[in-house]
Amino acid sequence: MINREQFESAQQQARVYLSRAGIIISPEEAANIEVADFGFNELDSTGLELVVYVNTDRVCAKELVLFPRQTCPEHYHPPVAGEPGKEETFRCRWGTVYLYVAGPPVADPQARPPAGREATYTVRHEIVLHPGEQYTIPPDTLHWFQAGDEGAVVSEFSTRSTDEYDIFTDPAIRRAPEVG
Amino acid sequence: MINREQFESAQQQARVYLSRAGIIISPEEAANIEVADFGFNELDSTGLELVVYVNTDRVCAKELVLFPRQTCPEHYHPPVAGEPGKEETFRCRWGTVYLYVAGPPVADPQARPPAGREATYTVRHEIVLHPGEQYTIPPDTLHWFQAGDEGAVVSEFSTRSTDEYDIFTDPAIRRAPEVG
Repeated sequence: MINREQFESAQQQARVYLSRAGIIISPEEAANIEVADFGFNELDSTGLELVVYVNTDRVCAKELVLFPRQTCPEHYHPPVAGEPGKEETFRCRWGTVYLYVAGPPVADPQARPPAGREATYTVRHEIVLHPGEQYTIPPDTLHWFQAGDEGAVVSEFSTRSTDEYDIFTDPAIRRAPEVG
Repeated sequence: MINREQFESAQQQARVYLSRAGIIISPEEAANIEVADFGFNELDSTGLELVVYVNTDRVCAKELVLFPRQTCPEHYHPPVAGEPGKEETFRCRWGTVYLYVAGPPVADPQARPPAGREATYTVRHEIVLHPGEQYTIPPDTLHWFQAGDEGAVVSEFSTRSTDEYDIFTDPAIRRAPEVG
């Protein structure tokens, strides 16, 4: 859990990154930026900031902000209510993102899992996304990602988001943000 | 049908608008911008320029470019192969878009259908989108849209695009772009 001050600071920082990426959001969206600390209160290393544009039964679109070297922990999207799991395309808009999925690991990866949490990061095939580059992740596919040294802004185009059904490799993670 | 020179000129103009909106596309995307003249060869009044980021069985994301006062003609997305029709969210990124759907018409609309084609524009309920504003169009819903005097860049988040099944009010329209 993060406290109110940490939450508002992360929101403000996310607004700065979105502005750097040239992305305009409404005042309501700016006030409602989601800050996910995944239950660790270690936003510098583990976390994600999100602006959800739309999330219907069929389609979801978001902007994701990652602070420098901030990491979204390893997880996958299982089938939900008889539907295939979430399919998502990440498109880098600003900065650099290092995305990891199953496959041959590179010899010298550009990102390392947060210190002390290495055991909960199991896939090591690296995809590097610069602005204008994208990658589509099928359902049921383990993945994690980390911003480079400048941070990153990433557009996500996907089927419906049902974050509460995401399955994280680290059983200690709590996806629903809590601010206290 | 437009000729090769018109096509390349429209592509180049679209790249300028995307750049104004701060949107970075890959060299391959830049080379493959779609120019839809809807069969009229009247790109100044009727047309649409598109960058398709992704179009899977489930999700589609695009950038749409409209030149000043360029109009995407009235159409809807019917059910296809037992699936509900395409659902799409338009999010304005740059410029102004006037979107029209069924509902009470405004007294003084900001856009007018292209001259001589008024009869093929039947819905007149106006939605004005500035940067950071968006609107979601359900399946089976007639709509058309026009950029303001500066042109516009619009992100579209949707279910799968199957343009060939779109139904236009004007039976003369041919959606598949032809360049000769």
